[in-house]
Amino acid sequence: MHPLKNTAAVRQHNMATLLQLIESRGPISRAELSRISGLSQPTVSGAMEGILKSRLVRAIGAGDSTGGRRPELLAYNAEAGFVVGVDLGGTNLKLGLTDLAGKILHRVDEPTPRENAAEGSVTRAIFAAVERLVKESGIMKKDIIGIGIGAPGVTDPDTGLVALAPAVGWNKTPVKRLLSERFGLPCHVDNDVNAAALAEMTFGSGPRLGNFVFLAIGTGIGAGVVIDGKLHRGRNHAAGEVGYLVIDHTWNPGSVTDFGCLESMAAAPAILRKGVSVLRAPEHNTDPVTVEAVFDLARRGDDAAVKVVEEVAGYLGIALANLAVVLDPEAIILGGGVSQAGDLLVELVKRKLKQVSPIVPQVYVSSLGADAGMLGAAALAIDAAKERLLNAI
Amino acid sequence: MHPLKNTAAVRQHNMATLLQLIESRGPISRAELSRISGLSQPTVSGAMEGILKSRLVRAIGAGDSTGGRRPELLAYNAEAGFVVGVDLGGTNLKLGLTDLAGKILHRVDEPTPRENAAEGSVTRAIFAAVERLVKESGIMKKDIIGIGIGAPGVTDPDTGLVALAPAVGWNKTPVKRLLSERFGLPCHVDNDVNAAALAEMTFGSGPRLGNFVFLAIGTGIGAGVVIDGKLHRGRNHAAGEVGYLVIDHTWNPGSVTDFGCLESMAAAPAILRKGVSVLRAPEHNTDPVTVEAVFDLARRGDDAAVKVVEEVAGYLGIALANLAVVLDPEAIILGGGVSQAGDLLVELVKRKLKQVSPIVPQVYVSSLGADAGMLGAAALAIDAAKERLLNAI
Repeated sequence: MHPLKNTAAVRQHNMATLLQLIESRGPISRAELSRISGLSQPTVSGAMEGILKSRLVRAIGAGDSTGGRRPELLAYNAEAGFVVGVDLGGTNLKLGLTDLAGKILHRVDEPTPRENAAEGSVTRAIFAAVERLVKESGIMKKDIIGIGIGAPGVTDPDTGLVALAPAVGWNKTPVKRLLSERFGLPCHVDNDVNAAALAEMTFGSGPRLGNFVFLAIGTGIGAGVVIDGKLHRGRNHAAGEVGYLVIDHTWNPGSVTDFGCLESMAAAPAILRKGVSVLRAPEHNTDPVTVEAVFDLARRGDDAAVKVVEEVAGYLGIALANLAVVLDPEAIILGGGVSQAGDLLVELVKRKLKQVSPIVPQVYVSSLGADAGMLGAAALAIDAAKERLLNAI
Repeated sequence: MHPLKNTAAVRQHNMATLLQLIESRGPISRAELSRISGLSQPTVSGAMEGILKSRLVRAIGAGDSTGGRRPELLAYNAEAGFVVGVDLGGTNLKLGLTDLAGKILHRVDEPTPRENAAEGSVTRAIFAAVERLVKESGIMKKDIIGIGIGAPGVTDPDTGLVALAPAVGWNKTPVKRLLSERFGLPCHVDNDVNAAALAEMTFGSGPRLGNFVFLAIGTGIGAGVVIDGKLHRGRNHAAGEVGYLVIDHTWNPGSVTDFGCLESMAAAPAILRKGVSVLRAPEHNTDPVTVEAVFDLARRGDDAAVKVVEEVAGYLGIALANLAVVLDPEAIILGGGVSQAGDLLVELVKRKLKQVSPIVPQVYVSSLGADAGMLGAAALAIDAAKERLLNAI
């Protein structure tokens, strides 16, 4: 337990509560805020003075009267500042400039450069892309109040160090420091899947869920575990590394740093490996061989393709069952490239889940699609900026 | 977020913080409490007036002086009240009468009656055992301030209902109400594994761990998941039902309410099933066939017995790996009858864990042994009693 030293701490806490209410329910009057929060009207008025100073909330004129003077309404000011969200993937670098409500005002998408002998090519590409994004957006530099980045590897959000991200050739890269120094802005970093889970929590279906798992299925498999509305990171920032779930007791890896058991059986490379002979069969002769093509063929009823999808969905269903029995979450939300393949996969995954687990949470594909990682990176910056603005009062 | 309405809430919060400090570090002076907590001396003195009224703390005379008057020392008063902890197992009913520090003053152990046509035989046995325990203990009835019970089944601590506990024939049994009414005392209930995890958290190695899993391996397999020092229960109070972990992708249960995959492969009945032919072999001819006997034979180097233990330890090692990659806990603490079988099993489990998982938490057997469930039940009552006493001020 952390002692609350004084009434200033209570005031901070109440300001944060009121800001959250205004964001989720505004425009709203002070009287209504008092009623919902249970705080007295003088307490609300006192806290609102501070919040208005932060510019995170603005008065937007009069609402309906219930008799007497019409009350002033308060609304979240999503344009009190803007942030840059960077989704660093092994293949693509996706950036978005958003307001404080996660509305994307401008985007930059480009291929991630191969990290080569001249170290730092990925970092330099990020610098250039951020500059291009800001310039093209037309937003004034002084109105940008933070940068967030999601990295494909083991990341420590406290130190801002990406310990290991082989997909982009990073090894102990101090990305938080590098970006902060370059742009003179607060920078926040987390791993890509945690960032996507944060996006789901902030802009997706998370706000009505206290406990959920965001399961990203793509080239690899990873999860963001949200408990009581908070990302659970674990002792080594490794919670949710579910690509390593063992669902075959005979599995015997050469080394534990290889691909994990679940990943080896059910991520995109496994689907392609299983699908290639089907797609290349004389009657189909499909090229290029993609995950999407395997699913397309299965949807059209090709027996061999259906078998591939059923096998993979079975493995994923077991992974969901194992998450369900450990955590009993309200929902398991699917993201990542493979999840975008659609309904067929999801239905088969759910069928397997129900077959092997007595605990069956809701299962659905994230509505944020391919933007989840970038929006989550933006959310990292937004959350930190809001806290800074409130604490500065 | 929950708004803090007034300074009374701050005062409650600070009293709870100070009480915790006195428990963990006392005897301690007010000055030292102020220094450690960061609370001002007047705040500490104000809160201490309340805490002393609760009788949970007492002044125990003067400590060392650092110049001037020697300061009064404050100590946790573990005898401010006593509680009854009931560990209801399918085979045994274990009760303990403890002080508020979990010191066991008296015990009652007896076989759990078979639930028969005359419903309520288990409940009646609990009533009688509680009465016997209190009588034999010599503690005055008026000094007993609560009862806690751990039940072997799906339990809702809020409603106090044991929804389903086939091991004792319970089905929607309102155990909290039944016990409260019978003894006129607050009663608290949770499932047996959560209770054991709470014991580990309170009296075992938990106080220095924020995140851990208590894994009970016995007739069944279940886990208590502790995150940020709090039991994570899940949406349906089913978090930690890891007997259902699927570690064999070909596993196909007749019904999901049957024994789970992991349980079927690695709990006590599976060990006995695998071990019976070894024990009954002419060269051993061991009787009775117990889990302990299988492990004894393996420790003596019998190849067939070693093979059984290795197989089971392999399955358990995979279960630990799956817990590790989902939660990345600081430790996985083993409890339950099978864990008591000792070092051989634990060493083999750890070996398998390291072989299949890149994330390796500490693994060890709980020091609370067979008392974990009963102490956890007592802790349920102690925690509630402390909160009541502080809130009554």
